[in-house]
Amino acid sequence: MRLKDLGERALLAKLAPLGYPEAAPLPPGDDAGGVWADGVAWLLKTDGFLYRDVALRGMGPFEVGFRGVAATASDLLVKMGRPLGFTLGLFLPEDLEEGFVLELVRGAAEAAKRLGAFLLGGDTNRGVEVALTVSGYALAEAPLPRKALPGDLLYLAGDRWGRTGAAIRAHYEGRSLEGFPKIREAAFYPLPRLELLALSGLLRGSLDSSDGLAETLWQLADLGVGVEVEALPLYPDVLAFAGSEEAALELVLYGGEEFEGVLVVPQEGAAAVEARAKAKGLPLFRAGRVVAGKGVYLRGAPLPRKGYAHF
Amino acid sequence: MRLKDLGERALLAKLAPLGYPEAAPLPPGDDAGGVWADGVAWLLKTDGFLYRDVALRGMGPFEVGFRGVAATASDLLVKMGRPLGFTLGLFLPEDLEEGFVLELVRGAAEAAKRLGAFLLGGDTNRGVEVALTVSGYALAEAPLPRKALPGDLLYLAGDRWGRTGAAIRAHYEGRSLEGFPKIREAAFYPLPRLELLALSGLLRGSLDSSDGLAETLWQLADLGVGVEVEALPLYPDVLAFAGSEEAALELVLYGGEEFEGVLVVPQEGAAAVEARAKAKGLPLFRAGRVVAGKGVYLRGAPLPRKGYAHF
Repeated sequence: MRLKDLGERALLAKLAPLGYPEAAPLPPGDDAGGVWADGVAWLLKTDGFLYRDVALRGMGPFEVGFRGVAATASDLLVKMGRPLGFTLGLFLPEDLEEGFVLELVRGAAEAAKRLGAFLLGGDTNRGVEVALTVSGYALAEAPLPRKALPGDLLYLAGDRWGRTGAAIRAHYEGRSLEGFPKIREAAFYPLPRLELLALSGLLRGSLDSSDGLAETLWQLADLGVGVEVEALPLYPDVLAFAGSEEAALELVLYGGEEFEGVLVVPQEGAAAVEARAKAKGLPLFRAGRVVAGKGVYLRGAPLPRKGYAHF
Repeated sequence: MRLKDLGERALLAKLAPLGYPEAAPLPPGDDAGGVWADGVAWLLKTDGFLYRDVALRGMGPFEVGFRGVAATASDLLVKMGRPLGFTLGLFLPEDLEEGFVLELVRGAAEAAKRLGAFLLGGDTNRGVEVALTVSGYALAEAPLPRKALPGDLLYLAGDRWGRTGAAIRAHYEGRSLEGFPKIREAAFYPLPRLELLALSGLLRGSLDSSDGLAETLWQLADLGVGVEVEALPLYPDVLAFAGSEEAALELVLYGGEEFEGVLVVPQEGAAAVEARAKAKGLPLFRAGRVVAGKGVYLRGAPLPRKGYAHF
């Protein structure tokens, strides 16, 4: 079967178990892979993309390099891994200007630096268009899988919900982001949250949201639980950008590129999680609960599954 | 300046220091990067390539996947890092058959397995042609940089010297490899040598050879020493394939894709290195010596610098 007929999710499900270790800190297909070494989990993650797929109007190579490290780091952090270093795999047309490549790598270095990590080299190859992969490794004392049990509470970390979706919408509709500085910042410099590590040991499970919140919640439901969304974060600037609550909710649910964490919290641990997040300055929004059953519901109504796929 | 005018080596030299840690176990631009953690070096390496650039006639996706992990693992092993796991970053046309991708990943998994390591997932993206990056991480108690002092001896590890070059030549000349099983094996399944780790602590420095032995020796000379090559390994099958000693030496010096180690050995440690390699079954060939001065010489004559570059 051809990839476009199979679909990316089905392909990844077939690939994930190949060569994966039996006793790994995280199951195959989770946000990152890893092995145990001396009682500590060492996580490894690679994420790739085409430059033209992620460069919104106004973003240059610096921002795209930054975004690349951010995407990989988000997967590591949400698994409670502290990122140590990143490498880049670059495919570049031979008539590209060197300044473009230097800015790309400087942006990646800046994101790494802000995470207390480093760039550890990489590789360049010719390619018909600019494409890159970013790999990162991280150390996790308590690696956190995708996991949920009925009764658990659902939290959204960070404050990019709907904002990155708004920036993507603005790009495709030719709208300016002037007057929306937080939307621009969220899309141009989506730095993942080191503060997530302060929640280590308090969570049941977690998932990185990058293909949209709705798709992420559906992936949570795929674990064999039901997801009831009771509320969604609706920021004033997203509402103002979207023009209506309905349009704003669409951006929150189907925006993508958030690089924020969806957190599953045992009910008895909720107060501690909220207190620690507050102490660290990590925005946290209580969005709903996990129930017995299946599927994702928004205030009782089934939530359509739509999300970005490469094939 | 455009990349094709700048050249890949000059580009990499500019990129390597960006974001690289000050107190790293290996200097920027070495075969792998890394950080210290609890007194042990954790190495990270990414290597990327286009499928059509490396798939010789007779190689399928399985062999290309195998070759990908081998290339990355070779860089880690030659730095005395024990590979633990690998991730893949895949760019794939959407009309590709899923069986092709599965074979690619199975080949990568097979190489990882033979190295006592694992595949830890990865990422798929659409692309106009098949391209991939392979990242790997490794643990090194005594990470070994590129280093050489006048008086040191030069050894070549492994037995693919000239063989991979012969296979590449056969590919471009439309010649069959029937009757040359070791040449075929060297090019199709270039498994790096775990046995190198047995030499940990005995070597001054090391380099991975993948762009050709001559280029690798020139990179050694770039450290500020002279390199005198006194002898080169000339296997009977490479000689038979090439037809003359001169043609065979060309393959040994400018072949590429060896994924073998060039080892720098302090004179007083040579006996111990040879004994340990013999005990482990690692082929080792004494090729020459490091001298004060600069440049690379083959039996007194300057050795031309030609090597593969992507730009």
